[in-house]
Amino acid sequence: MDSLLLTSSTTTDGVTERRFHLGDVPGILWTPEGATGPRPLVLLGHGGGMRMDVPRLVASARATVSAHGFAVAAIDAPGHGARPRLPRDDAARAEIRAARTADDSARFAAVSTRYMAELAEQAVPEWQAVIDALQALPEVGADAPVGYGGSISLGSAIGIPLTAAEPRIRAAVFGGGFFVSAAVVEAARRIRVPVQFLLPWDDEHASRADSLALFDAFGSEEKTLHANPGDHRRPRWLGLDEDFLARHLTAVAA
Amino acid sequence: MDSLLLTSSTTTDGVTERRFHLGDVPGILWTPEGATGPRPLVLLGHGGGMRMDVPRLVASARATVSAHGFAVAAIDAPGHGARPRLPRDDAARAEIRAARTADDSARFAAVSTRYMAELAEQAVPEWQAVIDALQALPEVGADAPVGYGGSISLGSAIGIPLTAAEPRIRAAVFGGGFFVSAAVVEAARRIRVPVQFLLPWDDEHASRADSLALFDAFGSEEKTLHANPGDHRRPRWLGLDEDFLARHLTAVAA
Repeated sequence: MDSLLLTSSTTTDGVTERRFHLGDVPGILWTPEGATGPRPLVLLGHGGGMRMDVPRLVASARATVSAHGFAVAAIDAPGHGARPRLPRDDAARAEIRAARTADDSARFAAVSTRYMAELAEQAVPEWQAVIDALQALPEVGADAPVGYGGSISLGSAIGIPLTAAEPRIRAAVFGGGFFVSAAVVEAARRIRVPVQFLLPWDDEHASRADSLALFDAFGSEEKTLHANPGDHRRPRWLGLDEDFLARHLTAVAA
Repeated sequence: MDSLLLTSSTTTDGVTERRFHLGDVPGILWTPEGATGPRPLVLLGHGGGMRMDVPRLVASARATVSAHGFAVAAIDAPGHGARPRLPRDDAARAEIRAARTADDSARFAAVSTRYMAELAEQAVPEWQAVIDALQALPEVGADAPVGYGGSISLGSAIGIPLTAAEPRIRAAVFGGGFFVSAAVVEAARRIRVPVQFLLPWDDEHASRADSLALFDAFGSEEKTLHANPGDHRRPRWLGLDEDFLARHLTAVAA
């Protein structure tokens, strides 16, 4: 097992941000300044083509630390951010560009679905190793309940199979706005923890019906669908239950 | 125009509840104890087969008065509560019972849709007259912004055409779980004010696709779909934006 290598630490406004590597995987851990005891851990997935330190994700992480005292972690997905692009990644991106240039929506959907499945297959064990490593830190702790706060799109394509596979995850936020494969629907059926599902109502590419079928598939007794107008690059969530993860993780921790 | 006849007044825990009649229409007005100046007015519609003073509705009214200082009003829908049942009502109810006994879902949907449309046609001008009469009270006021907090089912079948017809209504809560007619969809297209739409995900009778098409039809720039598992008689809303109406009516009033 790779060991956790902490590479930098900065503290601003009471939140300590530490960059780390676990083997090939770069990540960031946010904790309250001077945190010592165990606490819930929230994992944040980023969107397709994005990276772990995009401003929206960093702001969300810092807000969660400040409001709830949790630990928050993000990693770059395979082929994203500071990670090397493999021939697989370049080929998939080139094919996606070509499909969009040709306005070939069927091909765009097919290659996106296949590429996201490949990324998820690699990312799920990476996230599980990151949970292992972070729970070994005293300021997270081995019994820390874990939540997944995925971005819509790639964050959900990875987070859904991760949550299905990982019993330490006790609640999760996913979203529509991506090409939903049969494998992702199958993983959703195995999920039993509370789920909040965010649907941009007017996504210009992804099928609304597929996203609704994905919400329907979650095996969770407690699940909430929240939809607002807009597409997945410009979601403006209105009246959203922002405390969803915190409520469930605090309940587990108590 | 009929004049408002206040028939009783009781005050409990800082909330004054006054029963009234406006012509043939019985109603209840809840206001803060000793209220004097103008304030937003929330209209609460009840469900099919229910009445204006079912415990859930009364609790919601009192909570809104206590939390926000608003006025809240409810009326019995035609053929419901203390109002006489006309031959129309008895015939429709008998037909609904027969359709359900025969497990004839197409007939059940057809008669329910027709009956709710008849009730809405009568109830919309009744509600408008009630708004007129209540806004003449100094503790409501002629410029009071109005919100509609409809129950799902009949409350929405009436509230959607009412909101489409009534510019004083500045925000509305509706729901799925009823048989959506083309006329209701057409009314929804004319609505421009913020809408919160509650969908019981597993309604045993009403079509989920019809409810989603109704949400899609709202002409409002700001609209939110909130869905949870359960059918329309046992909704258990989780993480709901309870301040939706208050936020919008307060913004208008300010």
